Amino acid sequence: MYRDRIRMPSLESKIISPQAAAAMISDGMTIGMSGFTKSGDAKVVAPALAERAQHEKIKITLLTGASVSDEIDSTLTKAGVLARRMPYQGDPTLRKAINAGEVMYVDQHLSETVEMLRSNQINGIDIAIIDATAITENGGIVPTTSVGNSASFAILAKKIIIELNVAQPLGLEGLHDIYIPTHRPTREPVPVVSPDSRVGTTYIPIDPSKIAGIVIADKRDNPVKLEAPDADTKAIASHLIEFLKHEVKVGRLTNRLAPLQSGVGAIANAVLHGFADCPFHDLTMYSEVIQDSVFDLIDTGKLVFASATAYSLTQSCWDRFYANFETYKKHMVLRPQEISNHPEVIRRLGLIAINTALEADIYGNVNSTHVGGTHMMNGIGGSGDFAGNAYLTTFVTKSIAKNGAISSIVPMVTHVDHPEHDVDLLITEQGLADLRGLAPRERAKVVIDNCVHPDFKDALRDYYKEALKRGGQTPHVLEKAFSWHTAFRETGDMKKAF
Amino acid sequence: MYRDRIRMPSLESKIISPQAAAAMISDGMTIGMSGFTKSGDAKVVAPALAERAQHEKIKITLLTGASVSDEIDSTLTKAGVLARRMPYQGDPTLRKAINAGEVMYVDQHLSETVEMLRSNQINGIDIAIIDATAITENGGIVPTTSVGNSASFAILAKKIIIELNVAQPLGLEGLHDIYIPTHRPTREPVPVVSPDSRVGTTYIPIDPSKIAGIVIADKRDNPVKLEAPDADTKAIASHLIEFLKHEVKVGRLTNRLAPLQSGVGAIANAVLHGFADCPFHDLTMYSEVIQDSVFDLIDTGKLVFASATAYSLTQSCWDRFYANFETYKKHMVLRPQEISNHPEVIRRLGLIAINTALEADIYGNVNSTHVGGTHMMNGIGGSGDFAGNAYLTTFVTKSIAKNGAISSIVPMVTHVDHPEHDVDLLITEQGLADLRGLAPRERAKVVIDNCVHPDFKDALRDYYKEALKRGGQTPHVLEKAFSWHTAFRETGDMKKAF
Repeated sequence: MYRDRIRMPSLESKIISPQAAAAMISDGMTIGMSGFTKSGDAKVVAPALAERAQHEKIKITLLTGASVSDEIDSTLTKAGVLARRMPYQGDPTLRKAINAGEVMYVDQHLSETVEMLRSNQINGIDIAIIDATAITENGGIVPTTSVGNSASFAILAKKIIIELNVAQPLGLEGLHDIYIPTHRPTREPVPVVSPDSRVGTTYIPIDPSKIAGIVIADKRDNPVKLEAPDADTKAIASHLIEFLKHEVKVGRLTNRLAPLQSGVGAIANAVLHGFADCPFHDLTMYSEVIQDSVFDLIDTGKLVFASATAYSLTQSCWDRFYANFETYKKHMVLRPQEISNHPEVIRRLGLIAINTALEADIYGNVNSTHVGGTHMMNGIGGSGDFAGNAYLTTFVTKSIAKNGAISSIVPMVTHVDHPEHDVDLLITEQGLADLRGLAPRERAKVVIDNCVHPDFKDALRDYYKEALKRGGQTPHVLEKAFSWHTAFRETGDMKKAF
Repeated sequence: MYRDRIRMPSLESKIISPQAAAAMISDGMTIGMSGFTKSGDAKVVAPALAERAQHEKIKITLLTGASVSDEIDSTLTKAGVLARRMPYQGDPTLRKAINAGEVMYVDQHLSETVEMLRSNQINGIDIAIIDATAITENGGIVPTTSVGNSASFAILAKKIIIELNVAQPLGLEGLHDIYIPTHRPTREPVPVVSPDSRVGTTYIPIDPSKIAGIVIADKRDNPVKLEAPDADTKAIASHLIEFLKHEVKVGRLTNRLAPLQSGVGAIANAVLHGFADCPFHDLTMYSEVIQDSVFDLIDTGKLVFASATAYSLTQSCWDRFYANFETYKKHMVLRPQEISNHPEVIRRLGLIAINTALEADIYGNVNSTHVGGTHMMNGIGGSGDFAGNAYLTTFVTKSIAKNGAISSIVPMVTHVDHPEHDVDLLITEQGLADLRGLAPRERAKVVIDNCVHPDFKDALRDYYKEALKRGGQTPHVLEKAFSWHTAFRETGDMKKAF
């Protein structure tokens, strides 16, 4: 049975039920599950564990690559199984539990989790549960549609449970490039020198005696829903592309640009989509996630290669991918998220990084995570890995939210994920602020002039004028810095502050 | 004349007066000067330029490595010559002008300035002015007591003025290791794999035809004044060392620890001084600056090698260095600050980074730069390069300032240079907060319990309790988050807020 997928015959006897796998998990354990933006996540054992938790107390620490499907985060939250969660999530049920203080959420840079695990700075993985296409002759694990943290989870875990996913095509084999940094103090350079560098193995090398069970899974990834580009996201894309054209014109870039990184979600996808109509060519991508727009750019020949750690696709794009699998595979590689997001490689390649801001302030500080400074939305994800090390760090956001009750550009952000030092460009549908080489007082002017919605522009100018009277490198009126947020909390409209 | 220092005979004719050198500078130019923590700074042409500015309007953009001496920043500020300044300063006169909005100050990560220059993202260097020990047979520049940004300034500048410093011993030659990252998109890994790696040349390779003038200088570096360790800084050092002993005990580190990085200034120096009495041995350092304490650690045999980009020494330590030059030289190397602070190398080596916070908040966000959120102190320096990429990111500060009118631990920092994501340890004389793997609500507890001065502890607990009622991942009461700062501004005492 499954000879083409379990190629080490001695492992055939390890096939067990999801319930038997879930029974291996004890209260207090740390579990590392595969999964990144709902791709390649281990969807079979988690519901069985939630089922078990109906009858006995089980609290675990759950680590993943990034966000995972309902079957995992939502189900385990409802079952009360999650004590602690890292490094990223995007689930409404879990989010609520996090903000209520019921689940301790450690919001980490996505490149750092396995670095901390490897050096024993956080509790080690008791059991790794990995969605797999196949097990090789030597017991290696061939991942499915994401690598995420799966490789190091499996390598560092005491035991491994494999969810052998027979719904995933065997042709996924060869898509992955598994490279693990060597141990300190004798660590060597990460040898990736271009988005298409292949420097590792096509499988996760493990000690097969650690495989405690193999559960047969038969379910492809849950597709994502993605809003279509609208007038605002098209305007944001257009501002970025005009800027890049100018950069080419003045000789700072060529028409091949530099490897692109794009955050996850509707705005980032729409921005990338905007590259379809541009004079640039032979583009490459060194990013976290491959979204629908990447397939469009490959189809039109604009993009020649994409390196990432996972997919995040709508159903129609999944269908398109699987229907033309061998063609797309030539243009793509999936790496561990430690490598897709590695500061060393990001700095070396000189990326153009495009990520979404929740809010930004007049000096270019960016909040990616906290609504009203207190309530977690999703997490910082890889944005910090990229923002701190890219050639060009860009944050995009629509200038207003909630039908104009919120301005995304505020006097002072309520939570800083990306300090002004790291932010080069800020783009809204209103326009683009090029902050490179500017002092804060100059930044305030270009941000207010170019990025702010007309409904908030005068008020922001007034705030800044009042702040200037206080002086300083970064003028502020501290007692009014959050008055817009306070007004929104109390009245539902930031504009009530002025 | 100066045959031992000007070894390319054709350059002898380039010797000019400081006034003639200053005359090459025009209004609107961008000037790159050597100098880092007052070491190896170009001290001769700047005063001549200030003199000239008495009679004609000259405004320049000045780039250096980091802080430079009075002769440069103070003199040029008083003469009204500085229009724009980057990436770091520490001069009281200049600071005042910056905070008054008279000088546009661009506060950058110290590893990034030449990266932006190389890719033409900021205005190019018209003239580089470099303090030099000698000029080699092939026209290469041998720096003096810092490398800083000198190498790339000289390589990228249109013209070079050399301040040939005959007061500096020729024996400095061989101390430097000049490696410049190759151009993108074909950049290779930075080959530094250990603090004592030597991967470049001992001089700055330039096109000698760019040398527009050689000015003879005869002045060693201005020494720094350093407060002696006091009870508080000794307590901070002791907390860190006890923590590291524990890390060794549980097997996360060996007694060789990991390469140390230490920020500049009295507290960091005192902390490093504390390593003299510890069970650790064969220590290495991969840092920005070599302070007095490093010499002590070398003398006692605790530290075997220190890599940095500059010195920052008191007069007695300079005397000691020069008196035992050949011995110390074997234990040290000076690199370009792009390499001493390179994210790639910092991550690879896995540094223990120790930097000073101006203030920190209950969630571990750190402000390194802005007093009261508005007024610049010095700048972020290299702390962001290290904090974002180290194995262990530590911030140290005394728990109170201004005789207890200020708590260094506040509800919310007024400026974020280092987001909570990047901060592992927070240490005051009160104790140490180990934040690794903790969610914000857990962080608040350990920070308040361990780091806060007794005069502020109850008030901070009250703030946090009230914030908890609002809920969220990171509970805050926005309208009170800065009330301590506002009270200090209005009454001179943060305690008036409660």
